[in-house]
Amino acid sequence: MLDRLRRLIEENDSPAGRAFDLTIQALIVLSLVTFSIETLPDLSPRAQRWLYGIEVATVAAFTVEYLLRLALAERKLHFAFSFFGIVDLLAILPFFIATGVDLRSIRAFRFLRLFRAFKIVRYSKAIRRFHRAFVIAREELVLFVIITLMLLYFSAVGIYYFEHEAQPKQFASVFHSLWWSVATLTTVGYGDIYPVTVGGKIFTFGVLLIGLGIVSVPAGLVASALSKARAMEDASEKASEMRNR
Amino acid sequence: MLDRLRRLIEENDSPAGRAFDLTIQALIVLSLVTFSIETLPDLSPRAQRWLYGIEVATVAAFTVEYLLRLALAERKLHFAFSFFGIVDLLAILPFFIATGVDLRSIRAFRFLRLFRAFKIVRYSKAIRRFHRAFVIAREELVLFVIITLMLLYFSAVGIYYFEHEAQPKQFASVFHSLWWSVATLTTVGYGDIYPVTVGGKIFTFGVLLIGLGIVSVPAGLVASALSKARAMEDASEKASEMRNR
Amino acid sequence: MLDRLRRLIEENDSPAGRAFDLTIQALIVLSLVTFSIETLPDLSPRAQRWLYGIEVATVAAFTVEYLLRLALAERKLHFAFSFFGIVDLLAILPFFIATGVDLRSIRAFRFLRLFRAFKIVRYSKAIRRFHRAFVIAREELVLFVIITLMLLYFSAVGIYYFEHEAQPKQFASVFHSLWWSVATLTTVGYGDIYPVTVGGKIFTFGVLLIGLGIVSVPAGLVASALSKARAMEDASEKASEMRNR
Amino acid sequence: MLDRLRRLIEENDSPAGRAFDLTIQALIVLSLVTFSIETLPDLSPRAQRWLYGIEVATVAAFTVEYLLRLALAERKLHFAFSFFGIVDLLAILPFFIATGVDLRSIRAFRFLRLFRAFKIVRYSKAIRRFHRAFVIAREELVLFVIITLMLLYFSAVGIYYFEHEAQPKQFASVFHSLWWSVATLTTVGYGDIYPVTVGGKIFTFGVLLIGLGIVSVPAGLVASALSKARAMEDASEKASEMRNR
Repeated sequence: MLDRLRRLIEENDSPAGRAFDLTIQALIVLSLVTFSIETLPDLSPRAQRWLYGIEVATVAAFTVEYLLRLALAERKLHFAFSFFGIVDLLAILPFFIATGVDLRSIRAFRFLRLFRAFKIVRYSKAIRRFHRAFVIAREELVLFVIITLMLLYFSAVGIYYFEHEAQPKQFASVFHSLWWSVATLTTVGYGDIYPVTVGGKIFTFGVLLIGLGIVSVPAGLVASALSKARAMEDASEKASEMRNR
Repeated sequence: MLDRLRRLIEENDSPAGRAFDLTIQALIVLSLVTFSIETLPDLSPRAQRWLYGIEVATVAAFTVEYLLRLALAERKLHFAFSFFGIVDLLAILPFFIATGVDLRSIRAFRFLRLFRAFKIVRYSKAIRRFHRAFVIAREELVLFVIITLMLLYFSAVGIYYFEHEAQPKQFASVFHSLWWSVATLTTVGYGDIYPVTVGGKIFTFGVLLIGLGIVSVPAGLVASALSKARAMEDASEKASEMRNR
Repeated sequence: MLDRLRRLIEENDSPAGRAFDLTIQALIVLSLVTFSIETLPDLSPRAQRWLYGIEVATVAAFTVEYLLRLALAERKLHFAFSFFGIVDLLAILPFFIATGVDLRSIRAFRFLRLFRAFKIVRYSKAIRRFHRAFVIAREELVLFVIITLMLLYFSAVGIYYFEHEAQPKQFASVFHSLWWSVATLTTVGYGDIYPVTVGGKIFTFGVLLIGLGIVSVPAGLVASALSKARAMEDASEKASEMRNR
Repeated sequence: MLDRLRRLIEENDSPAGRAFDLTIQALIVLSLVTFSIETLPDLSPRAQRWLYGIEVATVAAFTVEYLLRLALAERKLHFAFSFFGIVDLLAILPFFIATGVDLRSIRAFRFLRLFRAFKIVRYSKAIRRFHRAFVIAREELVLFVIITLMLLYFSAVGIYYFEHEAQPKQFASVFHSLWWSVATLTTVGYGDIYPVTVGGKIFTFGVLLIGLGIVSVPAGLVASALSKARAMEDASEKASEMRNR
């Protein structure tokens, strides 16, 4: 009996286990949707009552699930402090602690629970491949992040000196300029802050020419790492086939 | 006689068949252009009369074509419910049903008929390669879409908590924030909604650094899948050459 | 004497020929700079006189060069109607024809003459590789352009139906909506036109998710084509080495 | 004694040397942070005193470090005029020269000193790979920069003729239009300048279709160059393994 319950909850190789997992996933999505709707202004009292009802129901279900997982875990402390153990707890705790602090934001972290879904196989191979690709390209990616941060800082300092006098409010400090760096080098370009002086515009041109080259590198990194990961996979598959013969 | 008509309409290996196909393509483009022009405000009555005339003519041609295709199809029901069968019907139906509902939008779907053009060979090889590449990278692409959706939701919730108080109208709810997520992570950045608080800006920076990395992944996926598809093609071509010797 | 002049102008394998080419290149850049400066508003009469002087001098030099090239060409008509022959003529003609029509814009096409510079070797190998890559990926690129055009049109029609009523001025017709499609799918996002309705925003989200996937494809296409072109180059180099042994 | 000091400062293979390097790195980051904070408007006199104190302390440390490096260098002039020698000097000089000119901007160049950090190994392999990839793709990248510059100029001239009359202030000259070219072809799209005429919009569409294709090329270039660099690395590693056997 206990074994079957464990298999139901922890595995998904039986139809019942898969149904259990899908139900939990649906409840998570439902609770995220209600959470999002609650943030809408001007909700009618009736809608609020409905949303509260759904919230109580989902939290009840999650609490039962959490306690079951805890009870069935062979190493209870290990589960309680594992990534998913903490995420599962954070998904229900804010409801029970009614403090003055606004804990609603934590509820949104329930979306992390959705990652459990990836256990439902299928994608695990793709995830493993991504993981391997990131391991292959790790050093380059870290290097890229460092260079990007330096470039952002350098751009911010540069544009500060070009634009500070012309737009003392927009480019009030290097920190304000950093916001410009981020919006520009990612090519988002909201249009809330942009250079107006000739020097600033020429500087922007130079920074973009270099910056876009740098920003385009990680795509190449991940691409080549992924194809290498795929090649390694194919090679190890062939090797295991050879062994099995 | 019937066979020749069938070959004219369904195949394009004869000069007449190719001419027929090109005529239909031209009529589709013409009907799309007139449809677009009709949406222009302040059209003179004369222009409207002309447009209506062209619309009648193209619909007449399409109706004849549809009936011919239906008559010549060996399995009539199969054609009627096939993708192109439905598209062909949707291209003419709105004209005949004059209801209060505005069916004009359906007319725009005529552009789907243009896909018939791809039968005109040449690109079919490239399409097949794309198709193969998508099959190869399918799992990763689905995974990527899921991760992107999660990232969009997470960003929306995060920015909501940072900006809701400072801009209660712009970031009115998680749904309003989702619009910001979409505009920002795709780097479109219309500028109708952007963070103004220090926390919101730093959060945006973090989200963009991670988000752009994720957005750059599918390009790599498709690239490596395409080159693999090309390699598979070359290999199978060589194999068939060997066989033919 | 004639032979030496021909070698001076048409080849660049001698120091004098190279000096001649560099001088012409410098004159082209100079004439483009003066052309750009002339468009500046509020130029002093003195600056205008200077600019006119430079213009006269460069056109004189280009005219001499053109006549020399024509005189030295073995097949004069062939040169006169070749790409560079026409470009060279267009570079000087607007100066001599003083009509009411503003021919100044043609002067800007002088920048095409800069492409002559690529004769100065070095990059010709890279250009050849690009050319080969484009030939390899030609079919896919044409297909991509067609799909992009279809997507742009489809997005325009879609957003027109969502936003026309809410913003009758911005989204006045399908053509106005096309401008939105272009600005959005290229992620430029000027911010002069954007959806405000819930339906329009959701539609934009969907279009962007699909559209960015499509936009990221050509990068992959060119990348894999380039690496294949490079591989073919290496292979043919090895083959010619083998032959030379 | 002298040898040990030299090893401490110039190498980082001993724990003390590593600690020294990390301390210097921390001081550089600290001085950059204080420099950035100083640009904030409305600083209290107390904060300014603190910042000045930190500035004095870091400059003192950097001065001692510079003099030590100079004293320990075997070829003093070579160090003084080396890249890092000049950067190290620029990091302290502005403090000692109190002229009317604002030398504060030079202080920001201290961030260049952070590159010393890359000596701390680990990333040197990734840097070497990047370097090799850039050498492989150098010709193509230079070619790409030239084509991009030409495209920017051509777009600027084109949009000038389309928009100058409609928006004489925004598109006042070819140089003003160049700013539009930069903001558009990089897809930043601040929204401070954009076409409003039908011709200008169609021109923008054409330029973007071609321009984005060109902008997507360098990503492919670097990607294929990086994977080639990686392959060369693997090959040379295997070769050296073979030799060691």
